[in-house]
Amino acid sequence: MNYDEFFQSSLDDLRTGGNYRVFADLERYVQTFPRARNHRDGKVHDITIWCSNDYLGMGVSDTVTTAMKEAIDRCGGGAGGTRNISGTNHYHVLLEQELASWHNKDAALLFSSGYVANMTALMTLGAKVPGMVLFSDALNHNSMIEGIRHSRAPRHVWKHNDYDDLHRQLSQYDRETPKLVIFESVYSMDGDIAPLEKIVEVAEHHNAMTYLDEVHAVGMYGESGSGVAERDGVVDRIDIIQGTMGKAIGVVGGYVAAKHSVVDFIRSFGAGFIFTTSMPPTVAAGACASVRYLREHNELRIRHQERAATLKARMKALGLPAMPSVSHIVPLLVGDAALCKQASDMLLEKHDIYVQPINYPTVPKGTERLRFTATPLHTDADIDHLCTALVDVWETLGLRREALAAE
Amino acid sequence: MNYDEFFQSSLDDLRTGGNYRVFADLERYVQTFPRARNHRDGKVHDITIWCSNDYLGMGVSDTVTTAMKEAIDRCGGGAGGTRNISGTNHYHVLLEQELASWHNKDAALLFSSGYVANMTALMTLGAKVPGMVLFSDALNHNSMIEGIRHSRAPRHVWKHNDYDDLHRQLSQYDRETPKLVIFESVYSMDGDIAPLEKIVEVAEHHNAMTYLDEVHAVGMYGESGSGVAERDGVVDRIDIIQGTMGKAIGVVGGYVAAKHSVVDFIRSFGAGFIFTTSMPPTVAAGACASVRYLREHNELRIRHQERAATLKARMKALGLPAMPSVSHIVPLLVGDAALCKQASDMLLEKHDIYVQPINYPTVPKGTERLRFTATPLHTDADIDHLCTALVDVWETLGLRREALAAE
Ligand SMILES: Cc1ncc(COP(=O)(O)O)c(C=O)c1O
Ligand SMILES: Cc1ncc(COP(=O)(O)O)c(C=O)c1O
Repeated sequence: MNYDEFFQSSLDDLRTGGNYRVFADLERYVQTFPRARNHRDGKVHDITIWCSNDYLGMGVSDTVTTAMKEAIDRCGGGAGGTRNISGTNHYHVLLEQELASWHNKDAALLFSSGYVANMTALMTLGAKVPGMVLFSDALNHNSMIEGIRHSRAPRHVWKHNDYDDLHRQLSQYDRETPKLVIFESVYSMDGDIAPLEKIVEVAEHHNAMTYLDEVHAVGMYGESGSGVAERDGVVDRIDIIQGTMGKAIGVVGGYVAAKHSVVDFIRSFGAGFIFTTSMPPTVAAGACASVRYLREHNELRIRHQERAATLKARMKALGLPAMPSVSHIVPLLVGDAALCKQASDMLLEKHDIYVQPINYPTVPKGTERLRFTATPLHTDADIDHLCTALVDVWETLGLRREALAAE
Repeated sequence: MNYDEFFQSSLDDLRTGGNYRVFADLERYVQTFPRARNHRDGKVHDITIWCSNDYLGMGVSDTVTTAMKEAIDRCGGGAGGTRNISGTNHYHVLLEQELASWHNKDAALLFSSGYVANMTALMTLGAKVPGMVLFSDALNHNSMIEGIRHSRAPRHVWKHNDYDDLHRQLSQYDRETPKLVIFESVYSMDGDIAPLEKIVEVAEHHNAMTYLDEVHAVGMYGESGSGVAERDGVVDRIDIIQGTMGKAIGVVGGYVAAKHSVVDFIRSFGAGFIFTTSMPPTVAAGACASVRYLREHNELRIRHQERAATLKARMKALGLPAMPSVSHIVPLLVGDAALCKQASDMLLEKHDIYVQPINYPTVPKGTERLRFTATPLHTDADIDHLCTALVDVWETLGLRREALAAE
């Protein structure tokens, strides 16, 4: 085969289908986030970021940056090894304790990322617990799907958030069969939230373990910010809580929190945990400081929810088709891949507003959207600016607006 | 099933087999590395690290720490998103350019770790190139094995470093079948180095692509430090070079470098690249500064090789059974799991020397060993101290010493 020809033509197919991705080239500014510098075609422009997953702006907070710099001064750059071979730093130990206590679990375990946490934990449980059967929500994130597939355990996909369907599928197995129910709390593309209590009830009824991805919830829900399980009062009924330090916590890295035996099992058998350099001490230090801050500062979550609600309300008032979302995520329907890309380009070029188009395969065809995240640092003026720009883009591109509610 | 009982009993089995791992709890000191503080049983001890994979001590260098702190002051903690959704920072772009130019390739692509780089690249090439057949060296690292398995492409394992065996296995396929030959340069447990030129010749003969893991070589071999492929003059004949920033570069993260079309293919289809938060700008900045430094400072590599050679020679002179190694890695044979652990414990407790025992399954039974890495920062006094301690431990435990060469 001619390798180069093959790769080129695959990429051409992507281009033809409108699915070829060109990355922005940004510099977030600590001092003025959500402002950033955009490097484009050799020129620089100042823009406002409207699609960051640093949901609370913790990544630019003094809390995080000070802790990170202190750790560098103390311990240097990298950890210098895998967790077992000289790469466990005291900051890792402290962070694991902090995360465990936050989630009210015995123990926690760090991974390079939330992706690796899901992949490794599910792969390990699926492959190393004899007879294990996995039950996965239909809209679970790619990191869970890959972990499930890679484990080669028998798997069943249940309808999104549909605990009756979950119940039906679990009913095929007896109580003795090891089973794991795998789902998310906040689904990040639609902004809906799973009915945790109902799902937990069904799982308990069938003696199934539960695995909850709180990646888009940690830091943001519950009185101490540990997630939707805390908000809904079901923390102690969920066996394994998985999270990321790359979104609301503002740094990078992933984890699971659970009973001691479960964490120790994943620690001892999870290849993706064992055979890799551990995270830099500075990353662990920054995340630890962030979690400590978040536990104490519910007012940040209140402000965050208020910003999202304000943005949704403003969009609705202007007839912009904000999709239903019960979380901090604000998706705006476009419904066409090319138009979605055009809207995003126009926002950037004409209005210095940066929001990525979300197209197939991330979301189903016909539901292409712009997905906005309002942080506590987005001001009223930022929201005004965005809404004015959106109306302009919607008019220019002839996009559908909804009938305004009668006065 | 009773989940807790199952997990507990699996862990008990590990304990019984001597394979249960207890992590050290260290604080590396920037100022005095290879010295570190060991937190143990609530007490702290100062120790010397002899098994760090921060092979050159770059992680504690001013070059790296200054660059990392500057990036934090400028851009904060995390990147705030996936590469596609607001998470590409200018530091990522600069680092990818630097890595590509270092390896004399068109382009490079960053991953969370070397593990994720291998897993994702091999998974993507194995699964997304129709008809692809993979040929893997028998001693390849777990990250490659997992990527290969997860891809579900047909795979053939060839005898370690045996290009004749590789040739035989490739001969089963015609030129048109897409084929990828997957191997490492420096194998980190034995310290042997693959015959790159021979392997490349065989691969070219069969029109197979080549994928080389230089994780334990980047920074350390070749005039500009880009690895063994550079040293052996075969860079341009290797299709994909994979590396880590977590070892000699001193930070964390992984990458592949290759032709533009190959990199763009992995960038566009690699799930483990796409669906995860990108590395913090500070990590990219530190790694970039480190690579720039390493390219210019061959004297660091000369000093590094000298330290390793000195350590090997001292061990041999004392009849300590240093295993044959043609690289910077210095493995010392113990040959028994329990004794290996005891030797390591005694070094730590009695001599304040930290080196992990390397037991099965990381190495075959009967070849359990201590694996030493001498950095340019280990002094003659450190080597003396280590050798004196080793002789004491070898005598106390009645371990085998080799007959000394006749004068
Ligand atoms: C639901 C979900 N789980 C896991 C991840 C992966 O987390 P991380 O970015 O830390 O790898 C993501 C997104 O990145 C996600 O959306
Ligand atoms: C040969 C090899 N490849 C890849 C890796 C993974 O690299 P990283 O530590 O950056 O995940 C390792 C060890 O960690 C390794 O030894």
